[in-house]
Amino acid sequence: MSGTSGRFEQASRGREQEEGTAFRPKFDADGLISAIAVDANGGDVLMLAHMNAEALEKTILTGIAHYWSRSRQEIWLKGGTSGNTQKIREIRTDCDQDTVLLIVEQDGAGAACHTGRKSCFYRTIIDSKAGIALEETDAERKFDPEETYGKK
Amino acid sequence: MSGTSGRFEQASRGREQEEGTAFRPKFDADGLISAIAVDANGGDVLMLAHMNAEALEKTILTGIAHYWSRSRQEIWLKGGTSGNTQKIREIRTDCDQDTVLLIVEQDGAGAACHTGRKSCFYRTIIDSKAGIALEETDAERKFDPEETYGKK
Repeated sequence: MSGTSGRFEQASRGREQEEGTAFRPKFDADGLISAIAVDANGGDVLMLAHMNAEALEKTILTGIAHYWSRSRQEIWLKGGTSGNTQKIREIRTDCDQDTVLLIVEQDGAGAACHTGRKSCFYRTIIDSKAGIALEETDAERKFDPEETYGKK
Repeated sequence: MSGTSGRFEQASRGREQEEGTAFRPKFDADGLISAIAVDANGGDVLMLAHMNAEALEKTILTGIAHYWSRSRQEIWLKGGTSGNTQKIREIRTDCDQDTVLLIVEQDGAGAACHTGRKSCFYRTIIDSKAGIALEETDAERKFDPEETYGKK
């Protein structure tokens, strides 16, 4: 369990959850909701990550995107190491309130992905005679990951 | 377990997963990956859902979005009941390949959400003196859910 619902109201179902004005984030069995970040300038989808109640609350209260790192099992201030923080312009939630949509100004190098690209979605799936494969559709690196994070 | 990796290669880690041209979708413990659908016309984020290997394969091979319904525990041809199918224009994947981004033409009434709105993200989170709450930012219903799905 990565967190509790904290200061938030308990998730409900049906009309109350879908049409109401109470924010009732619906955390999964691991205490997480999905968070999609899109670029406030142009609308590109930058990344998908997860938040526990604490990360969600910090994001709302500070206006800077915080996530829950599932690999490190800790709160993750996005850009804490790289400087590529995300300033929140707006947050939306979906019908059943198990996902939030962050509209962000991507600060620092203007890159959300740890590989140095603007967006994590830099490869397109292609289905050809040779089978299903990937094609790189955004090769541009806005920063050098080795320089930023150190050589792995 | 909602499915196996099926015809797809096993997910890997690090450079091979992030920089390679092999599609190696990384399914979670429930056999699912996240799928974000965005409108090919304008780029609005329409919804977030999940796919098992079968739904992912059907989506790639048919060019029509299929998801895995976690509530019904079955393959879900989006729009099978409502007619609001999603024609795939492009599919991208992210750095660690645990999410796909579908760029879709939203057919039917032009609405992705079962509530009748174009997008599931029709409410904005507001933080005021009264606390954290939601404000409806897209009230327009492109179809009548009761007429389409029957009265609940």
